[in-house]
Amino acid sequence: MPDKDFREILKKVNQFEISNNTDIIELINSLKETGFNAKRLALACEIYNEMINQSDCVKFFGLAGALVPAGMQKVIYDFIKEGYIDILVTTGANLTHDLAEALGFHHLQGDIQSEDVNDSYLHKEDINRIFDVFMPNKIYEGIEDFVSKLQIPDMQMSISSFLKFLGEQLPKNSCSILRICAEKKIPIFCPAFTDSGLAMQLGFHHQRLNLNHFADMLEMVNLAWDAKTAGICIVGGGVPKNFIMQSLQFCPNSAMYAIQITMDRPEQGGLSGAALREGISWGKINESAKYSTIISDATIALPLIYWFLKKKQKETKKGY
Amino acid sequence: MPDKDFREILKKVNQFEISNNTDIIELINSLKETGFNAKRLALACEIYNEMINQSDCVKFFGLAGALVPAGMQKVIYDFIKEGYIDILVTTGANLTHDLAEALGFHHLQGDIQSEDVNDSYLHKEDINRIFDVFMPNKIYEGIEDFVSKLQIPDMQMSISSFLKFLGEQLPKNSCSILRICAEKKIPIFCPAFTDSGLAMQLGFHHQRLNLNHFADMLEMVNLAWDAKTAGICIVGGGVPKNFIMQSLQFCPNSAMYAIQITMDRPEQGGLSGAALREGISWGKINESAKYSTIISDATIALPLIYWFLKKKQKETKKGY
Amino acid sequence: MPDKDFREILKKVNQFEISNNTDIIELINSLKETGFNAKRLALACEIYNEMINQSDCVKFFGLAGALVPAGMQKVIYDFIKEGYIDILVTTGANLTHDLAEALGFHHLQGDIQSEDVNDSYLHKEDINRIFDVFMPNKIYEGIEDFVSKLQIPDMQMSISSFLKFLGEQLPKNSCSILRICAEKKIPIFCPAFTDSGLAMQLGFHHQRLNLNHFADMLEMVNLAWDAKTAGICIVGGGVPKNFIMQSLQFCPNSAMYAIQITMDRPEQGGLSGAALREGISWGKINESAKYSTIISDATIALPLIYWFLKKKQKETKKGY
Amino acid sequence: MPDKDFREILKKVNQFEISNNTDIIELINSLKETGFNAKRLALACEIYNEMINQSDCVKFFGLAGALVPAGMQKVIYDFIKEGYIDILVTTGANLTHDLAEALGFHHLQGDIQSEDVNDSYLHKEDINRIFDVFMPNKIYEGIEDFVSKLQIPDMQMSISSFLKFLGEQLPKNSCSILRICAEKKIPIFCPAFTDSGLAMQLGFHHQRLNLNHFADMLEMVNLAWDAKTAGICIVGGGVPKNFIMQSLQFCPNSAMYAIQITMDRPEQGGLSGAALREGISWGKINESAKYSTIISDATIALPLIYWFLKKKQKETKKGY
Repeated sequence: MPDKDFREILKKVNQFEISNNTDIIELINSLKETGFNAKRLALACEIYNEMINQSDCVKFFGLAGALVPAGMQKVIYDFIKEGYIDILVTTGANLTHDLAEALGFHHLQGDIQSEDVNDSYLHKEDINRIFDVFMPNKIYEGIEDFVSKLQIPDMQMSISSFLKFLGEQLPKNSCSILRICAEKKIPIFCPAFTDSGLAMQLGFHHQRLNLNHFADMLEMVNLAWDAKTAGICIVGGGVPKNFIMQSLQFCPNSAMYAIQITMDRPEQGGLSGAALREGISWGKINESAKYSTIISDATIALPLIYWFLKKKQKETKKGY
Repeated sequence: MPDKDFREILKKVNQFEISNNTDIIELINSLKETGFNAKRLALACEIYNEMINQSDCVKFFGLAGALVPAGMQKVIYDFIKEGYIDILVTTGANLTHDLAEALGFHHLQGDIQSEDVNDSYLHKEDINRIFDVFMPNKIYEGIEDFVSKLQIPDMQMSISSFLKFLGEQLPKNSCSILRICAEKKIPIFCPAFTDSGLAMQLGFHHQRLNLNHFADMLEMVNLAWDAKTAGICIVGGGVPKNFIMQSLQFCPNSAMYAIQITMDRPEQGGLSGAALREGISWGKINESAKYSTIISDATIALPLIYWFLKKKQKETKKGY
Repeated sequence: MPDKDFREILKKVNQFEISNNTDIIELINSLKETGFNAKRLALACEIYNEMINQSDCVKFFGLAGALVPAGMQKVIYDFIKEGYIDILVTTGANLTHDLAEALGFHHLQGDIQSEDVNDSYLHKEDINRIFDVFMPNKIYEGIEDFVSKLQIPDMQMSISSFLKFLGEQLPKNSCSILRICAEKKIPIFCPAFTDSGLAMQLGFHHQRLNLNHFADMLEMVNLAWDAKTAGICIVGGGVPKNFIMQSLQFCPNSAMYAIQITMDRPEQGGLSGAALREGISWGKINESAKYSTIISDATIALPLIYWFLKKKQKETKKGY
Repeated sequence: MPDKDFREILKKVNQFEISNNTDIIELINSLKETGFNAKRLALACEIYNEMINQSDCVKFFGLAGALVPAGMQKVIYDFIKEGYIDILVTTGANLTHDLAEALGFHHLQGDIQSEDVNDSYLHKEDINRIFDVFMPNKIYEGIEDFVSKLQIPDMQMSISSFLKFLGEQLPKNSCSILRICAEKKIPIFCPAFTDSGLAMQLGFHHQRLNLNHFADMLEMVNLAWDAKTAGICIVGGGVPKNFIMQSLQFCPNSAMYAIQITMDRPEQGGLSGAALREGISWGKINESAKYSTIISDATIALPLIYWFLKKKQKETKKGY
């Protein structure tokens, strides 16, 4: 922060208002002139929009947290469909839940206090709980049935290649993340793949399977290296965040744009909550990068960001 | 939770989508069928709308946190103007910042990394920092000038009476919370009033001032007692939350509706983060109440709730 | 941060160990050379010890959160008894709970999952819940009985004078914070006093009571002004934090030592979670102050700090 | 919670005190009768001690977060050396940092405000920042040098076998987690191994490496299945938590003891912050299990737990 110029960059806080004509673009533009997480949300929207507008920007998207069970599958699907994601890094859990929905199974939600239901009761009823969302245990039977019949072409293929193969086997008319990524040739990386119910079923039924994790790791460094401009959006931290970050660390490139949506904080020193500016010291993020961390549940922030981007991009295409 | 009926109340999670025609009402209605804080936000919107629609519902609104500096003054002003708040309980800090804006002073905000600016530098420049919002120290001179000239009618009046008097002295064309409350005869309670810059200036210039805090405390119990239906919305916790809660505790009444927007959590045992259901044990919240806690920065959640309510109420009035 | 010297101040992280002879002093001294909150805890211990050793240091102690119900009454009592607190600022709730214990009533705790007990059941049983601690509602009757018989000497005395009077009425052999403060002439400030069950009972039974909050506010500024060296320890934030901070803001003095124990974070802009360094911009904390924020439940950090201080002070007195 | 018996299980909260003779065992025993996280810490100590005392209990330990950089390497080493851990699941990052320390490199820490140092400056100086801990980038050269010379016996061995091989190559007189696990035949699982600097260097220098992740996944289910009694201790959540939990989910067994130390919370629905009782619904945790979640930075809680266990176990062996 060049302190001498600081007074000059200060502007009036906008006591913003909602009018009859407020739309998502006006809301976000107004919030940009406020403070705290509202402002950071608005800055994140603006940064993401720039990432999309810059044609040589490769958009890395890290996704952790149980977002598919929480009803965010279609939003992520749309991020991919609209071209807002070039490389997806996620958890095995999200892929397991995505597969379940793609095969026609559903996660369940209840009334306002359903998170207080007794867990022993749920266990007897064969219902697994994810805070206030529920997953009937029999969904695993459906996944098992599907997985056991897979004709895996190569027991030593990379995980990303396997996930592409998997996506191609899924019904066309679903909102599956696996399916749309396969269609649009968006690679999915999943470094902790064996930490998932999907991998468990694969392991039980395909005993010789040894998907190559190292191939993905090296491929990811190449992708980071080759990106003319690198932009990253991190949802929830975890392994997806670190995997994207280390790829930028171990190549000469660094991110010019960075967005982070998380409830984790920096003080306990874990990577999930680490401030984005800390990434500058590691060479993961460029010192002239634009970045914004939003402390928010992704189920609130992600739909708003998508809503903004979709409307904004439509306007851009129309030549506004 | 009557476990036997639990399976019956479970519904499919909605993998919701943003379409070209999405508006705030559709967004919130769709999020209601998802999970985590997105669902809780939607439930809070629905509960608040019910509170407004039920004509005998007295809407208690507790407001803590530096929301005026963060650009939320106009949103709160509009909550009051539209009749969404019947009784306001807030902090001296918010009133101090509201007065500053009403007198024509402004809070300032800077570019994306302004929260990292050096605090010693700011001190030399006479700029006070509130995370990423800035308040020039000379604003206090403006407040002092105004406060020193006040002709306070009664040195022992209640704080709420004093705040009404104060609001009446403010310019008509401002978005002042103090002004609109005075105009609409919405009482403002501020139990920790002397914990503020405004009270400090009052104390310096009106040495015999002894505003009656006990009168407010008892008046507040009466208001809680007389409410045919009590509904509460708590932003940020703190003294405003407890003051509303204790009024319901010390009368036979209890809240039928309760909303809470906070980043605090229950595990360390403080009241700010206490779960709303805990209020049932105290008789503050009715055991058949509808309630929802949103873990979110209020600068994100509050504008969305207001946006929803305003559009929904407009539709309701049109007879949709 | 003078960057040029930065490499020189860096030292090896201590991979610390617990030996057969580890005591609390060795533990804290070792943790000082680690990282994250362990290090911050150790720094806070060291800073507090310096505050005690510096004879002209006035130690302001802000206490928010339900610490008396959680079994921390005796620790705070000992802080006062040992002379580690010169001025106490706290919430009405803590004083209400302190009074209850002083009158022979008790808070209750249960087995490992007692926080999950049904709140409607508790309400029927007249038991109030504070997360995993319970307060039988009949305690209020005991408080009421005591309060109704009080012969308050002056209906317009300051709150701190009233609290001194109150402490003098309490049994000598209790661990009451009110009692020990009265005995040791440690002033207690409680800016949000009417936000408490104790004030409620006072208001019901002494209708003409109008304790002077403004007198306390001004007295507190004088105490801050007169402190040769000011040191502050903030537990939990809230009104006690702000009240201490504003006293330093509205006088030429500023804190040379500052400790903060909280679970609140800076990003949502509330004062409770504000970084201590932010206080430098306001002139509340000196730019050359030593300070440390510990992100921790106070029920864990406070006993450890007291344990360290007591043993360290004993050694100091022995001339180690 | 059998409500009828609830009143009977309630006991007085202990207003605990520190005396001249307080030791860690007395401290923890006293805190057990308090509330909030102090009580939960004490319960966790007691539960872990029971796990150790029960000879057929297999103790699964999940470790996430940058604990080695923060000076916790020796504590974890001692947990293993003393026999308090039977199966370790951790992150690649912790193993990378452990290897660095084992090879004679060191993490660095600075003075009280070192977390505010400018990240661009650090980048120029080739120093990587982990909140307030620093890692000179040249450490990677040391790791690379070591890794490049490794004579890996089998390119398709499981990760746990490879980590055992790796530990055997390390100097005997270090406090390395890898070394002590190899010596004591404690398996280390690392499901997200390729998400680490260590794996990156391995991949660069051993291009045909394809360590078998699936073998570990299946082996882990067998270990969970075979455990007469399963006990788990989760530090920090993440992949290690889920990997332990899924092993218990996919076998008939479930944990009889469970401890969790984390700063994550349940409301956003991620597994890291999920309540332990939620694990009951999945069959991961037994409905009659003893469990305790401590909301605390592990750098504070873990040393205290170890200190308690070591002293308690010494007493037990002496026949107290």
